[in-house]
Parts: sequence; structure tokens; C-alpha cells
Amino acid sequence: MSELTRVVLDCMGGDNAPFEIVKGGVEALNASDEIKLLLVGDKEQIEAELSKYTYDKNRTEIVHTTEVIEMAEPPVKAIRSKKDSSMVVGMKMVKSGDADAFVSAGSTGAVLVGGQLLVGRLKGIERPPLAPLIPTDKGVSLLIDCGANVDARSSHLVQFAKMGSIYMENIVGIKNPKVGILNIGAEEEKGNALVKETFPLLKECKDINFIGSVEARDIPAGVCDVVVTEAFVGNVLLKTYEGVGSLLLKKIKGALLSNLKTKIGALLIKGTLKETLKGFDVKDYGGAPLLGLNGLVVKTHGSSKSVEVCHSILQCNTFKKQDINGKIKEHMSLE
Amino acid sequence: MSELTRVVLDCMGGDNAPFEIVKGGVEALNASDEIKLLLVGDKEQIEAELSKYTYDKNRTEIVHTTEVIEMAEPPVKAIRSKKDSSMVVGMKMVKSGDADAFVSAGSTGAVLVGGQLLVGRLKGIERPPLAPLIPTDKGVSLLIDCGANVDARSSHLVQFAKMGSIYMENIVGIKNPKVGILNIGAEEEKGNALVKETFPLLKECKDINFIGSVEARDIPAGVCDVVVTEAFVGNVLLKTYEGVGSLLLKKIKGALLSNLKTKIGALLIKGTLKETLKGFDVKDYGGAPLLGLNGLVVKTHGSSKSVEVCHSILQCNTFKKQDINGKIKEHMSLE
Repeated sequence: MSELTRVVLDCMGGDNAPFEIVKGGVEALNASDEIKLLLVGDKEQIEAELSKYTYDKNRTEIVHTTEVIEMAEPPVKAIRSKKDSSMVVGMKMVKSGDADAFVSAGSTGAVLVGGQLLVGRLKGIERPPLAPLIPTDKGVSLLIDCGANVDARSSHLVQFAKMGSIYMENIVGIKNPKVGILNIGAEEEKGNALVKETFPLLKECKDINFIGSVEARDIPAGVCDVVVTEAFVGNVLLKTYEGVGSLLLKKIKGALLSNLKTKIGALLIKGTLKETLKGFDVKDYGGAPLLGLNGLVVKTHGSSKSVEVCHSILQCNTFKKQDINGKIKEHMSLE
Repeated sequence: MSELTRVVLDCMGGDNAPFEIVKGGVEALNASDEIKLLLVGDKEQIEAELSKYTYDKNRTEIVHTTEVIEMAEPPVKAIRSKKDSSMVVGMKMVKSGDADAFVSAGSTGAVLVGGQLLVGRLKGIERPPLAPLIPTDKGVSLLIDCGANVDARSSHLVQFAKMGSIYMENIVGIKNPKVGILNIGAEEEKGNALVKETFPLLKECKDINFIGSVEARDIPAGVCDVVVTEAFVGNVLLKTYEGVGSLLLKKIKGALLSNLKTKIGALLIKGTLKETLKGFDVKDYGGAPLLGLNGLVVKTHGSSKSVEVCHSILQCNTFKKQDINGKIKEHMSLE
């Protein structure tokens, strides 16, 4: 048996902790025998959850912590002061080499800060981007960066493009992924100062398949596999995606339930519609990786159910087996 | 009878010109006797279209032009070189005072450039923002700016907030409109350099109802009436809105047509669903105004049908009757 991938699971983070988190952990253990799970958080609560399931106990370990970082806490202060929180203890295990990866559904801000301060960046990486997958008509695209690194420079965006490309090729399995820079028009002269400065640099990169500018309108159609942008714009795009999607679905549901005729119609289309919209759900792909760190940190949605937690853990295993960090280092030294 | 509002209609711009454009013009004439329509473009084509309808000929005038600015042309070059295009001739009529407003479904870039170069800014206005209405669960919100003015400064955003507030109050009829700044978190310390610099300035403004930061996720729900942002981010938000909406609707249509059972279901829900999604259509509100000019320039969608053209023209009448530019001047002198 090859070496196990040691994944730290933050059992106290997220809206559904610890129930869905521990459940997802067990699901991952049962789905892959290449994983060792390090469950961090309140021991009593974790044991109570674990006792509900059957799994390989030899591949689990509980690390007891007494503090929890709440969603609304200022991230830097929380990471600095709550030394015995599941997040701080868990991330330090990655830093020290006691674990390969860390998965949390907790505060995004704290995950971003902890990733940088506790786990630390790979040498040569200027900024670690948070890179969620967004659903498209063709599958998924990687949106890089959606993190806290606003006001980025062009050199950051070039690194994002390379790391995103490596990730999509090796984790999602897209051969020679198409990389686009998010812009407000397809023409090369369009854009703000940052895009205009970054465009020629990406054009020069020999190790990515740069297809030029992409417009936000075309991203849902799946125009490219890696969407490069700075964090503020990426965050706006991601959240608009979520907001428009949920409003439209709410309106459609309302229409379906408005009278007897539509209710009968709804019964006839329900199954097919659900199946169709399922493809528009990123849960199956796991969480968003924070790339370019000494290890891997994965942020799953705060509202994650076990399925998303499970896929996030399995994603850590692929990340290690594919030696993503080795490949990132290799590409960065090509500069 | 009060003075007529003289609206120049670019009959050559847009995917459906001249047919839908002229049709929309006639609809506006028949909807309001306060409008005089100045139809600019190829005289023969315009006359051929007009001959299909009944309307008050005393309130129309045709201005013959020989050139057309195409969608794909570089805007600055097109505006400078095509002196006898419908767009250049039409905008100059606003500048000279021969008309009050200009409506076009043509190239957005050319409309933006022409607005600034030919019509010109109001004294004291640093940048004229393009401000489309976006559909929300509560009605519409004004997204200001979506224009070509990328890399804005905080002073620009403050002017956008004031102009947007005046527009929503007087044109859309929202009393004391809620103004939010688009941000990546609700907390005051969040944001990029531009947002952090603009936030306190907006907080100080006594003449707007500033509610603080708004997240892109909450905009579709209608969290505020005026969304202040710089053009690059605004453009990304607007186009993500369009892209996600059209992908979801495409997927739903596909599901409805997938088999006999769903087709029967679709028949039962069709009318209600259509009615529900109609509220998610901005056509009834007219086009996007380019604010802060010596006159009014309205950009309607390139794919506009007559209904949108008609509403854009009626919007020009309200703009004049409400003396929006007078109100903008008044507020700007309060600085």
C-alpha cells in the first residue's frame, strides 16, 4: 500500500458542523483507502458523531481542541488569538508536515489568513489564490482568484494562470486547459490597467494555453477552463453567479407552485428538471483550493453537506498523488 | 401644449435596424404627444418603414445621413472619421441644442465615445457613467457605472452615487433610493483600495441614502436601488447576470423538451412561467442612460425590439420633464 494522504478535517467549521463534516469524513474514508483522516475539534462531539458510522478506525485520529473560530470574527485577530482553535491547530499540522492537507467549511477570511500565516507560501509564490470551480454548460471552470488578495499586480495574475492551469489539468483532468483573462471586451486593447499589463505577459507564457480575453457573459457557456482575474472582480463574478442562480430558481419554483394546473405540470417535469439542474451544482467537485501553499488548504462552502466535504477530502488525495505542488514549483522555476 | 421633447433616434444602429427601431419610434409617438421624433439615417429606408404606420407626421422629421458605424469598428476612430454617420450627426444635434436626447441601439463603445466627445460633459462632471437597470426580486436596481471608464477614482464614484440617486428617484420613482457600494463583504474594513477610499466619502454625503457595502450575491434580491461601482466591475457583474440567466433558462428549456412527459408538463406551466420570468426582463424600463452629459444619451441593447426602443424614447421625455440635468447641476454645486 502506498503512503496515505493525511487530511486534517476541521470538524468545528461551517453551518452544519460537526454532523455533516464528520459524516463527510467517514464517507471519504469509505470511498478511498488512500486517506488518513485527522479530525480536529471537540473530542467528545467528534466521538459522538463517529460512533454513528462504520469505518476503518486505523485510518482516523482525533486531535482535541477547545476553541472555535466563528464566521463573523475578524480573521487576523481570530487566527492570532485562538491558538487552540480547530483551524489554527489543524493548519499548523500541515505546516509541520504532520499532515498533507487541511479541509474546512469555516470562515473564508480565517482560512485565507491562516493559509498564508500558518501554512505559508511556497517559495517564489507571491500570493496564494483561492480558486473555486464554477458550473458551466460544458462542466466546470476554475475561477482564480476569489480570495482576499485584492489590488493584485500583473505578476500575481501570471502565477494564478499557471497554477490554475496545472490544477485543471491534473485534478479536474482537462487536457491542455484553455486559460482566459476576464475582460470587458474581446479585443486586445480593451481592459483596465491591470488587464492591459497582464495580457502580453500571459501571451508570452509558453506553458499555458492562453486564449486571450474572455467576457463574463461567455463564462457560463464554458468559453475557457481557467478564468484569470484579481480577487475583487473574481469575488463579484462568483457571488453574482450564486445570486442570479438562486433568484431565478426561486422565481421558477414560485411559478410552479402558483396554481393547480402548474402544480400538475411541476410533477411531470420535476425529475428531469432536477437532473438537469444537478449538473449546475459544484458540490460534486469539492471545495475551493487555496493554491501555492506549503501543503494544501481547501475551503468548502459554509453550508456544505457531507457530499461536498467528502469530495473535498478526496480532492486532497488527488492533489498529493498528482504532486501538484511539485508541478507548481517546477513551472515557477521556469520563469 | 407644453414644449415637445425632441428625441433623436439612430435608425441605423442595432441588430434590428431600421425595422424595429422605426417601429419603436412610431410606438413612442403614439404613446405620448409630448415627443417630437428626429429620425436620423438613410432617408429612403426610414421612409419605407414609416409608410407602414399611422402616426402624427407633424411630430416627426427625417435627417438623412449616408454612413453607418458598425458594431465592430474601433469607437474613437469611427466617431472621428464617419462624420456623416447617423450617430455622429444625431449626437451633434443634441450638442447644438437642436435636440434634447439621443437614443441608439448601435455600438456601445461608439455611443460612449460620442457622448463624451460630441455631446460633452456637464460642467463639473468628471466622467459620464453608463447606468443600466438590472432586474431584481423587488423590481430594478441601477448599476452605475458599466461604461468604458475603467480605473475610476473615488471622486468619480461619489458623483456616480449622486447621479444614480437622482435618476432612480425621478425617473424610476423610487423615493429616497438606497445607495450601496459594491464590495466583497459587508464589513467596513473590507474592499480594495478604491472601495476603502470611497466608502467614507459616500458616508459623508448628506444628499444620498447610503446604506454601506453590498455584496454581489445580494443584488439580485434587490438589496439596494443604486449599486455604485467602477466600470470594469460593473461590466463583469452585468454580463455575469446576463450569462447565468441565459444559461439557466436554456437548461430549463432543454429539460422541458426532453420527453413526452415533460412536454405535457411544460404545456401546463408555460403561461405562468413566462409571466414570472417577464418580470426578469428589463425591456420595459428602456435603455441605459449615459449620465452627466449636456443632454441625454440612451443606449438600448443591440438586440432591441420596438418595445425597448419605445420605452427608451419615453424615458427621454421623463428625463427632460423631471429636469434631471438641472437636478444633477444643483447637487454637484453642493460639493
